[in-house]
Amino acid sequence: MSVTDELLANNARYAETFSGPLPLPPARHVAVVACMDARINVYGVLGLREGDAHVIRNAGGVITEDAIRSLAISQRLLGTEEIILIHHTDCGMLTFTDDGFRKSIENEVGIKPAWAAEAFDDLATDVRQSIARIKASPFVPKKDSVRGFVFDVASGRLDEVC
Amino acid sequence: MSVTDELLANNARYAETFSGPLPLPPARHVAVVACMDARINVYGVLGLREGDAHVIRNAGGVITEDAIRSLAISQRLLGTEEIILIHHTDCGMLTFTDDGFRKSIENEVGIKPAWAAEAFDDLATDVRQSIARIKASPFVPKKDSVRGFVFDVASGRLDEVC
Repeated sequence: MSVTDELLANNARYAETFSGPLPLPPARHVAVVACMDARINVYGVLGLREGDAHVIRNAGGVITEDAIRSLAISQRLLGTEEIILIHHTDCGMLTFTDDGFRKSIENEVGIKPAWAAEAFDDLATDVRQSIARIKASPFVPKKDSVRGFVFDVASGRLDEVC
Repeated sequence: MSVTDELLANNARYAETFSGPLPLPPARHVAVVACMDARINVYGVLGLREGDAHVIRNAGGVITEDAIRSLAISQRLLGTEEIILIHHTDCGMLTFTDDGFRKSIENEVGIKPAWAAEAFDDLATDVRQSIARIKASPFVPKKDSVRGFVFDVASGRLDEVC
């Protein structure tokens, strides 16, 4: 039995007490962009309930072109107005470099990715970089509340990056 | 008081009973790619606990270049081996076209995005498209368990796309 099969059994239990459907647009008008890290349960960390907020996640929680795509759809079509960015302590993105990662792939499979891995060496600096990318984008219309945080994987606390 | 401030108050309560840190690599060796839709609480839907699985999310839950970047980091650096894809019923991506979305942005701000919005008109077809993109990528090494599902926002159930 694969892990996927075990998780599907969990889903059957989840559905037993599920009550839906809820409306499509997020009730709290918020979009969260967080790292994919397994220790960040975004709904738990922010006390969100099903239907409250869009949740966008990728390696690092960085603002890539795809995150801009998602935020543009979130704000322009589904009415979100605030953005919350979440990086975290002990992040895997602090442990390698873009050059090293891309070279390792080239060495192994003979093809070097045309994309940056988006590794970083300072959490707060990268949160500010992500905020700057949102502020610079012509495709994300609502920028009055774009706030960035570092989630502490030891304490469970969000600390704001100023 | 903004919604962000309210969610930060929720976080303070979450941290009161939080126990960490857990290890960085996902305990269940799984990466999930799901739509950003507010109604999909991935940890709840799959019965995941903090530390279990990488969670990658974007508009549609589609396999974009950024999702490939995240999956490459997840598998190559952090040991995940299975991939679960989650689209869902009543998805916003079924309600517009790429051409229309990009044109509306061009009309409003004078700049047309150079990226596709990744809208789709059939859920199962787009799940299969996402699986095909993973299978075709030289950067995602482990492809033995790549399974795709549609989450029913009415019932809470995952239905596998074959």
